Amino acid sequence: MNIDICDVGPRDGLQNDATQTTPEMRAELCRRLADAGVPYVEAVSFVNEKRVPRMAGAETVVSLLPIDTKTEFNALVLNERGYERALATNLQAVHYAFPVTDAFGERNQGAKVADSLVTAKRMIERARGDGLGISIGLAVAFGCPFEGTVDPFRVLEIAHEVAEMGPDAISFADTIGVGVPKQVRILVEGMTDTPIPIGCHFHDTRNTGVANALAAVESGAEMLDASVGGVGGCPFAPAATGNVATEDVVYMLHGMGYETGIDLDKLISTAKWLEKQLEHTVPSALHRAGPFKCIA
Amino acid sequence: MNIDICDVGPRDGLQNDATQTTPEMRAELCRRLADAGVPYVEAVSFVNEKRVPRMAGAETVVSLLPIDTKTEFNALVLNERGYERALATNLQAVHYAFPVTDAFGERNQGAKVADSLVTAKRMIERARGDGLGISIGLAVAFGCPFEGTVDPFRVLEIAHEVAEMGPDAISFADTIGVGVPKQVRILVEGMTDTPIPIGCHFHDTRNTGVANALAAVESGAEMLDASVGGVGGCPFAPAATGNVATEDVVYMLHGMGYETGIDLDKLISTAKWLEKQLEHTVPSALHRAGPFKCIA
Repeated sequence: MNIDICDVGPRDGLQNDATQTTPEMRAELCRRLADAGVPYVEAVSFVNEKRVPRMAGAETVVSLLPIDTKTEFNALVLNERGYERALATNLQAVHYAFPVTDAFGERNQGAKVADSLVTAKRMIERARGDGLGISIGLAVAFGCPFEGTVDPFRVLEIAHEVAEMGPDAISFADTIGVGVPKQVRILVEGMTDTPIPIGCHFHDTRNTGVANALAAVESGAEMLDASVGGVGGCPFAPAATGNVATEDVVYMLHGMGYETGIDLDKLISTAKWLEKQLEHTVPSALHRAGPFKCIA
Repeated sequence: MNIDICDVGPRDGLQNDATQTTPEMRAELCRRLADAGVPYVEAVSFVNEKRVPRMAGAETVVSLLPIDTKTEFNALVLNERGYERALATNLQAVHYAFPVTDAFGERNQGAKVADSLVTAKRMIERARGDGLGISIGLAVAFGCPFEGTVDPFRVLEIAHEVAEMGPDAISFADTIGVGVPKQVRILVEGMTDTPIPIGCHFHDTRNTGVANALAAVESGAEMLDASVGGVGGCPFAPAATGNVATEDVVYMLHGMGYETGIDLDKLISTAKWLEKQLEHTVPSALHRAGPFKCIA
């Protein structure tokens, strides 16, 4: 069985890294991920550069992306202004993410869940009209820093409302890295009554990322977000919050008999290249240990 | 359901750490683990101090262990000479581990599998006579650095031979951290036809430790080894090979509804204390991120 990996390193990873990168470097990272066979890459986010300086120059990144590749590049958008910036580029798809709790939504995006659902509906309709792909991400679906534990049945209610709108995919995001496989199973299995493909987005903050990824695919998820090198949080920070590392997820998936179309050695090389660019250690295990090879 | 955790940090962890520790410090670590409610602690190994200087002073460690605790302390032994040293102390149990491949066994212990099985039988018989607890560990059960992939059905054959000898428990060890949950399930489920309790011992070298731990308990394993702080390999070494961190496993297990009797906050404090003693970062996720708590 095939699992579609979306590498969110150029966006979620580098947005939260200690090092400021250039648009040219982020485009090069995208090119290397495409060369390793990663089918989807979240290349940029169209957000306010003053609020999120790490993501400055999104249009430049897009203009430098390779066009001779099977990889689909997409952008995170958080509102219609971001959507319009994405539409003005030659990107094929956008990802609109919103939190499933009012407390997080109000602080992060100035919108409650009900507001975000209205935006999601409008954006899906616009994307259909504009010929853009669109997927919807549900943030803090496994726990919220302000509201605590999030009832999975409330998350499923929101996810079903979104499913009715007909996006290309819906993903459950463990934004703060607190989720365990039990929650993953409830959420993913809870969507088997809809035809919309389901994805998951895990952070390895509490070392549950790989276990959650396995729980997701075994429950029917078809897509997983991950970040090359596991970037997204500094390993020396008090609460490192990196995305689960793509190469760690791919090692496990291949070992379990899943296919990803990804060349693990090339992916590990990309993580090592990224580490040099960032001038600090990145947290993934595979880029240190390498795949399983016999000592001659 | 209860899962019995054995913290192997004082032995497997510190044996492979870059920092030389004192017997007094290792005994203090054992005391702190007992205070956190860890039911089993692998406190020492009785090996040749010239070959394994990190484990020097095993008898001193044992003499300093707390006696006013429910925690059971045990020792790793690799041969009958080590068994005799353990017997001369007031420890209640020993753990005899041997590799399931001839190539690893000959290099590590100068013994093929057939030889080790003879030793296991003799040691179990002696332990019964001496009133000592004894468990048997099967090393490189998920992959061997010299022979490569290890056929799980060969491992199960060896495990069944051991089960016939009637030890208190048998554990499958992923000594080099290459295993995936599929293998764990085959091994653990393959032992349901014996009455011997099954444990697993994982290294997080390739970030599969927590996923493997979950696969183990869901397949029927009753015991898990882990190491506080995830010590056992330097995070800056080319191929960090630490045991999976006890606090990371406990976080996941509690989240999944399993009980361990362990106080997670005290365990995290112990990992932080250990980090100071070792004067370098330890790899566990929970000691950095902390448990899931709301921002007030």
